[in-house]
Amino acid sequence: MSVHAPLDGLIVVALEQAIAAPLCTRHLADLGARVIKVEHPAGGDTTRHYDQVVHGMAAHFAWLNHGKESVALDLTSTVDRQLFDALLREADVLVSNLAPGALARLGLAPVGLAEQHPQLVVVDISGYGVGGPLDHRRAYDLLIQAEGGACFITGEPDTPVKSGIPIADIGTALYALSSVLTALYDRERTGRGTVVSVAMFDVVAEMMGFALNQVLHGGAVPVPVRMGSPMVAPYGAYPTRDGETVVLGTTSDREWQRLARDLLGRADLADDPRYTRNQDRVHRRSELDAVIADWTVEHDLAEIQELADRAGIGSARLNDVTDLAAHPQLTHRNRWRRVETPAGAIPALLPPPISRDWRIRSGRVPALGEHTGVVRAEFGAGLLSADD
Amino acid sequence: MSVHAPLDGLIVVALEQAIAAPLCTRHLADLGARVIKVEHPAGGDTTRHYDQVVHGMAAHFAWLNHGKESVALDLTSTVDRQLFDALLREADVLVSNLAPGALARLGLAPVGLAEQHPQLVVVDISGYGVGGPLDHRRAYDLLIQAEGGACFITGEPDTPVKSGIPIADIGTALYALSSVLTALYDRERTGRGTVVSVAMFDVVAEMMGFALNQVLHGGAVPVPVRMGSPMVAPYGAYPTRDGETVVLGTTSDREWQRLARDLLGRADLADDPRYTRNQDRVHRRSELDAVIADWTVEHDLAEIQELADRAGIGSARLNDVTDLAAHPQLTHRNRWRRVETPAGAIPALLPPPISRDWRIRSGRVPALGEHTGVVRAEFGAGLLSADD
Repeated sequence: MSVHAPLDGLIVVALEQAIAAPLCTRHLADLGARVIKVEHPAGGDTTRHYDQVVHGMAAHFAWLNHGKESVALDLTSTVDRQLFDALLREADVLVSNLAPGALARLGLAPVGLAEQHPQLVVVDISGYGVGGPLDHRRAYDLLIQAEGGACFITGEPDTPVKSGIPIADIGTALYALSSVLTALYDRERTGRGTVVSVAMFDVVAEMMGFALNQVLHGGAVPVPVRMGSPMVAPYGAYPTRDGETVVLGTTSDREWQRLARDLLGRADLADDPRYTRNQDRVHRRSELDAVIADWTVEHDLAEIQELADRAGIGSARLNDVTDLAAHPQLTHRNRWRRVETPAGAIPALLPPPISRDWRIRSGRVPALGEHTGVVRAEFGAGLLSADD
Repeated sequence: MSVHAPLDGLIVVALEQAIAAPLCTRHLADLGARVIKVEHPAGGDTTRHYDQVVHGMAAHFAWLNHGKESVALDLTSTVDRQLFDALLREADVLVSNLAPGALARLGLAPVGLAEQHPQLVVVDISGYGVGGPLDHRRAYDLLIQAEGGACFITGEPDTPVKSGIPIADIGTALYALSSVLTALYDRERTGRGTVVSVAMFDVVAEMMGFALNQVLHGGAVPVPVRMGSPMVAPYGAYPTRDGETVVLGTTSDREWQRLARDLLGRADLADDPRYTRNQDRVHRRSELDAVIADWTVEHDLAEIQELADRAGIGSARLNDVTDLAAHPQLTHRNRWRRVETPAGAIPALLPPPISRDWRIRSGRVPALGEHTGVVRAEFGAGLLSADD
């Protein structure tokens, strides 16, 4: 099979802002789809204005929007709306994450769209879905993390914090992506599109599944344990002799045996029945953490990681963002590409899935409305123009 | 179009453990695929043994494995291996996340599988991918969060913490899911499967995209701000008069205007040029947080949320896991289903994507090897049996 872009030939219209829809459609563009991002002429996507770090562009916007065409349309104007409708007639997919009620106010309620455009896959992202007491409420990543209980299992027991990675947004982007792909696969067989709704709140609730099971069945309410896990032990971060932090993890009784016997050289602990079962180790987490830290602080990071490798125990270095940017695991595996922008080429990561059969498309970060003229010329034949 | 399961008729073989592959294949089962989970007879999936919270089953295992068949096979035994090979001949998809090198040691290296089974979609999940200095290293969620810099943007500047939601695992599950679906869509057109590799480390690096852009382009290195965001302000958690915590978020200059003028009643702040631009508000975050907290502590949570709704400002309650389990937004929208287990029915959430055209399959949590006999009878005709 020759190398090809699996979504080549598909047209995706994006009525999007922030992270959840833009990350979804960026991955569709990575896979070869033509993504037409419809932005309001007055400023466009909010993330364009977060900062000017990337040669005048915002860090978020540059991350999420390369490979797309930007079309500036005011959907309340007749002229622009006709062009948008013409776009939808040719499109395979519409992804949207506007504020609650915004699509309906524009006369673009998803169910109506599906009736007008039977071929269309519509993925409508919202904060809280349709119905229920909160469906009118605006939703941002932090708000959904907080409402969904995620902050209460992160940090320390009396100091809930949010995940720095915007997991509600990114998780929603990835469920939206799989929804588009499920619907496209289905369309190959049925000949019809569909409407899929994805609510950020449902996404966080799904990601909380293990914690929900604890609560629903009378287990201990999971508490945050900083760098540790409420479910398995030992699992955490420990200081080293050379001033680094090593992270060590075990997730089974067998691994605990190897950690104690082969890494720490503590056959007495490996044989101690108080520590045989994971649940008992979880209860005695702090005792084990102290024993491990006493050992790690006597060794350098490199030595610990080499010994851990030999013992078959997972280890990592606690890196910061600067370390990640220079990480040899990314450079050695050629994970960086260059993408164009109005201000010159910038580095960007390749998308996580790798197949030698797939060509990844690396397009440009568009200026607001950069493709309005081209798209109008291509899709707007016979329609009103702004000069009429 | 009649309601149907979009992946009905597909056979998925899962050589899986923990979270990343099991969540991927659970969603394939939700969508109608037949998922055959191959587990080692000596204990099976590690997560079976984390705890016994759910009527004797572990919270993680019950969350991730309903709707699958469990087949206990020792792939180093000739008899079991013949059955496994027979399964692969009929399968559409193989998803695996064994330890580094384990597939190759079993003679199941993905590229060889693709040559033997041209119809097969193989998604191979690893910690660090193929090549580079770390490709031999074991990977768990915490290890990848730490190595990927995620802990350094979570918590407080001198106290990095991990996200309680296992984002490296779950993000990888969702990229694996979209990879399966992309490859199935592609197979409809090319007639051939493919091999896709997804590395947990690449997933976390992708999720760090905004932070990487800051570092790559000489912006400020993002620091964690507990419940806040390093990118936008005001955005955070504030105490209320009735002892609750309200979370408020703004992500644009327009929202800041509404927050200051309409919610706080502070036209002076709305007009103050020091706070006009997001970047300036980020630098003066603590001043704004103090002003907001002085106001929230004089009002009850319900009142604040009603006023925020009217002002068009997003708000949320800081919930814990118990709150989430009883959340009206889940019950009012019928987001709970019952799934069977060997110990009776238990509640489980429906998957996040909702389409009125899709039937969601809600199957049973399998006991280890519960379906070995059935699967052997169905796929093992003419093969050796364990009694030969």
